[in-house]
Amino acid sequence: MVFKKVSRIKIPEATIRRLSLYDRCLEELQRSGKRIVSSSDIARKCGTNPAQIRKDFAYFGEFGVRGVGYYVENLQKDIKRALGIDRSWNCALVGAGNLGFALLGTDSLAKRGFKISAIFERDPILVEMGSFQDIPLFGMDDMQRVVSEFGIKIGIIAVSPENALKVAHSLIDAGVKGILNFTPTTIKVPPGAILKNVDFAIDLEGIAFQMSSD
Amino acid sequence: MVFKKVSRIKIPEATIRRLSLYDRCLEELQRSGKRIVSSSDIARKCGTNPAQIRKDFAYFGEFGVRGVGYYVENLQKDIKRALGIDRSWNCALVGAGNLGFALLGTDSLAKRGFKISAIFERDPILVEMGSFQDIPLFGMDDMQRVVSEFGIKIGIIAVSPENALKVAHSLIDAGVKGILNFTPTTIKVPPGAILKNVDFAIDLEGIAFQMSSD
Repeated sequence: MVFKKVSRIKIPEATIRRLSLYDRCLEELQRSGKRIVSSSDIARKCGTNPAQIRKDFAYFGEFGVRGVGYYVENLQKDIKRALGIDRSWNCALVGAGNLGFALLGTDSLAKRGFKISAIFERDPILVEMGSFQDIPLFGMDDMQRVVSEFGIKIGIIAVSPENALKVAHSLIDAGVKGILNFTPTTIKVPPGAILKNVDFAIDLEGIAFQMSSD
Repeated sequence: MVFKKVSRIKIPEATIRRLSLYDRCLEELQRSGKRIVSSSDIARKCGTNPAQIRKDFAYFGEFGVRGVGYYVENLQKDIKRALGIDRSWNCALVGAGNLGFALLGTDSLAKRGFKISAIFERDPILVEMGSFQDIPLFGMDDMQRVVSEFGIKIGIIAVSPENALKVAHSLIDAGVKGILNFTPTTIKVPPGAILKNVDFAIDLEGIAFQMSSD
């Protein structure tokens, strides 16, 4: 299969989110021993429909062999390549608080290719620890140097809301192009940089919507 | 405006997510003193396009007055009603670990109408504290009684992955209909119950995608 981005067409964000979900479903299908799947198999697993899957895949060019289905392993490789996670991304965590430690306590980011290579923290007592789970801890003043030395591409902001804006600017100034913001603070990034906000309430609102409309 | 769910039509999940975003943008527009907005105003603020907004709103019936725009306050009320967050939802947090404390440390859930009314924890030493930030702490054995007494509708699972399935079953058995799962554990819920998984890696994958395709 040729699974490449068809240029010039803007791919909807919802399609990108679904690609991530398909990849997770394929992982489970593979674990359960499946080697070839149809779009119906994936649809059933992901709770969507085959037409949606084919439409999403169509953004990236050619399809699997008609009548045969998709080879799980190849399809997963193609999706990972399309998402840009066929490689590893060096990330920095900013803020060693409860949320930061929660993120460090899970291997689900690393499993998806996002490696936290450095932690930045403004509390000097924490910084003095030197490292946490073998990940080096730095003060905020070291950001410029460390981002460049470690090849940090993505910054994860898990500080208190009032410090988020300053941290975002420091990350951008240091050359970080992607930012995941866990605070409710509205952050604007310059053209060429990418920002995503994590907002747990949005998922709760999805639940509230479904519970209200039943 | 009549902003009600048009029955029988399945509303896409992406539309629901966008409604949550529109609501946040309207909040900011209102704070900046705007009383009437066009779909272009909302689109600019949210980074989408007016046609998408009108399409999303169309799922819920009638529109604002043509040529005049939307009254921010009314539109927000209508969106909140559509999402089912024109009321408050009693939630229970299960797991008083780093992530749990991070969730308790932010007011962004409460601001959106999701009130954590009880915390369940299996560590008896923590449970003995009795409460945290005035929210009562209970052992797992108290779940059935507390869910019913407190009118808990939504359970937030922030335990270790190996305990997530058991916790989900206990919540469902106790009568909880909505579950927000922060663990990577795959949970299946019976018909009538609603589950959403929080997966931070999906947002990172969205960033990786954009950074790869630039």
